[in-house]
Amino acid sequence: MEGEPTLRLRIFNLNCWAIRYLSKRRQQRVRLIGDTLRQEAFDLVLLQEVWSEQDYSELKVKLAGCYPFSHYFRSGVIGSGLCVFSRFPILDMLLYQYSLNGYPYMLQHGDWFCGKSVGLGLGGFAGSRAGVRAPLLSLSLQLHAEYCRDKDAYLPHRLVQAWELAQFIRHTSKAADVVLLGGDLNMHPEDVGIRLLRGWTGLQDAFAEAMHFEGCKNGCTLVPDNCFTDKSELLPFPLGIRIDYILYKAISSFTVKCEELKTTTGRAPGVDIPFSDHEAVMATLHIQRQGQPAGATLGTADPALADVVTEARAEVGAGLRAARRQRYSSGRMAVLALLLLLLQAAAALATLAGLGAEQPFPKLSFCLLAFLALGVLVLATGLHLFHTMEVKMLHGTEDQMWMVLRALQERP
Amino acid sequence: MEGEPTLRLRIFNLNCWAIRYLSKRRQQRVRLIGDTLRQEAFDLVLLQEVWSEQDYSELKVKLAGCYPFSHYFRSGVIGSGLCVFSRFPILDMLLYQYSLNGYPYMLQHGDWFCGKSVGLGLGGFAGSRAGVRAPLLSLSLQLHAEYCRDKDAYLPHRLVQAWELAQFIRHTSKAADVVLLGGDLNMHPEDVGIRLLRGWTGLQDAFAEAMHFEGCKNGCTLVPDNCFTDKSELLPFPLGIRIDYILYKAISSFTVKCEELKTTTGRAPGVDIPFSDHEAVMATLHIQRQGQPAGATLGTADPALADVVTEARAEVGAGLRAARRQRYSSGRMAVLALLLLLLQAAAALATLAGLGAEQPFPKLSFCLLAFLALGVLVLATGLHLFHTMEVKMLHGTEDQMWMVLRALQERP
Repeated sequence: MEGEPTLRLRIFNLNCWAIRYLSKRRQQRVRLIGDTLRQEAFDLVLLQEVWSEQDYSELKVKLAGCYPFSHYFRSGVIGSGLCVFSRFPILDMLLYQYSLNGYPYMLQHGDWFCGKSVGLGLGGFAGSRAGVRAPLLSLSLQLHAEYCRDKDAYLPHRLVQAWELAQFIRHTSKAADVVLLGGDLNMHPEDVGIRLLRGWTGLQDAFAEAMHFEGCKNGCTLVPDNCFTDKSELLPFPLGIRIDYILYKAISSFTVKCEELKTTTGRAPGVDIPFSDHEAVMATLHIQRQGQPAGATLGTADPALADVVTEARAEVGAGLRAARRQRYSSGRMAVLALLLLLLQAAAALATLAGLGAEQPFPKLSFCLLAFLALGVLVLATGLHLFHTMEVKMLHGTEDQMWMVLRALQERP
Repeated sequence: MEGEPTLRLRIFNLNCWAIRYLSKRRQQRVRLIGDTLRQEAFDLVLLQEVWSEQDYSELKVKLAGCYPFSHYFRSGVIGSGLCVFSRFPILDMLLYQYSLNGYPYMLQHGDWFCGKSVGLGLGGFAGSRAGVRAPLLSLSLQLHAEYCRDKDAYLPHRLVQAWELAQFIRHTSKAADVVLLGGDLNMHPEDVGIRLLRGWTGLQDAFAEAMHFEGCKNGCTLVPDNCFTDKSELLPFPLGIRIDYILYKAISSFTVKCEELKTTTGRAPGVDIPFSDHEAVMATLHIQRQGQPAGATLGTADPALADVVTEARAEVGAGLRAARRQRYSSGRMAVLALLLLLLQAAAALATLAGLGAEQPFPKLSFCLLAFLALGVLVLATGLHLFHTMEVKMLHGTEDQMWMVLRALQERP
């Protein structure tokens, strides 16, 4: 097997934090990212949070020479922010939008408006010297952000996303020889969502597997040394946190090894500002053809998997109960507003018909109250519909997890 | 090859039209469907428009004996309406929700609220006498309804759905030996959406391939003989229309043949009422293992495919232009409402500061106008956000189609 040809694949992953008008020194950083990518000539570049199509277009023009193939994934109101640049042809594309992604009324968090998704690119890559040719499934993605670790209201949504992502990978990866996932998962390595994703798909963590590592301690990608990070958020984690990952697995008759993993360390190489508030993750993978097919590598053999699915299901269940409470209270609010409106209409009709001696309220407050009731009715109805959808999706995920648990327990 | 073992698979597909409080004689019809399914003992039952989970639960209890495996797909506000009953184990499930599905403000059409989706069930089936064992990918689905054929405002949305469905099938079907799709596609056989779906996936139409057919003329599934159909809709089509399909293909070393296709003919067998306003479609398929793998069966060899994709892309482009116009006009309306509000605020402030001699408007009309402007602002902003998403998704689909066209043209 030692003599088999090997393909060396260099991957760059970065959450670019390129929000127009909001991100600091955005244009300068996007130029810097483009320059670095052109110099370094990676094989595959996975970027997140490129929210402006203009930034993508500029990068595309700049990188056309070394990365002739690229794709920008459009979704949501603002966009998915995901794009891929590749030295190898991109043969096919698919965008999967998570069914849950926060709340539209949480404007300050804004995740809902981004239409967070996973972008899948199917490409063929070929070793130049060797005869290695394999379809490559590369995924670029971002999951819902975590705004408060102690009281994480979005955990059920992030778990639904992790589950849908895992299911999506399981169902789409059958034709690929190698699966590569790069992205900002917004989860710490020991979090239940990461364990669920890795356990259910069999993906390996490049940081854990790397033969050689260079960069921030523990592979952290949000570090206090970065001048753009929010220092108060990192107070409980003096070394920083690791939430950006490169994960991989070989499907059929290939093996993948991570030769080297690097992260930037609070600034871009050779300059005094960082690429982004996140650190870039760069991996060098060795892909080699094996003698015989590796067999089932879907990672379902892990005996701890059932425990992880049970834990995730409990969290989704808690989210389901909270969503049901919110659906109930918004529904009740809508009914109350409707009753108030009906009462007012009855009072107005009675006055018009001359039943009451005179209008009991001044006209102005009467109208104001009616408009207030109407506004509450519309908003509460909208909320009720939204939480009804949320309940459906959480319930559906809980069901799917239960089905998987049953299958895991029945298997010897 | 003649001597190879054969598996006979019987499939039942029906749009059940089971809307609570709205569909006529719903409970009686659901009971009738359950009784028939129990008597007939199909291998696989794909149902659409089972909007009430209670109806599903009743069917599940009734059918537990002959169809021990089943799944109900939850999505949207009302649900997806999709469910599957199977004699063979359902190993895994995935729900893909189309990114576009009508407009939330078209309440009378209601498609938006249903969260229309395709439900995928991966099952293993086994021939009892023979040694045929193959993973089966079965899909149950419904696309956006057509409300006016001459001026079909939803055509771009339905085409995006057909495209996403085709892409979904291409990406998820690699591990299956046989793909089966049953559903209400809301498209006539010669429509561009059907040609796109069939051309891009290589799926075969059971009606066209059936060795023996029995049922309504031309395989129609919305027929004037059915007492529940809207006769005025069918005036241009005196024989009826065919919009419910069973499609299939064999992927690897299998062949699939349609031995028989049947439809009901305006009423359920042996009784005087139909199952639904749609006719049921029942197929008997023969699945046989071939000597050698059949090779590429993704249907991309069809030289007419490029024309179909071009035609579909033109329709999506027309939809994109319309969505951009709507985005623009809703944005303009929001800006006008905001300006009016600002003007009013300025006038109120000026009065409060004693700059004007007296309030130029009566208080009541002033307040009413302000509330009206606020209402228009909220609604127009919501519409603007919605149409922005619509533009993103139509644009993304147009891009993907262009990429496929380029690949098709480059191929010899």
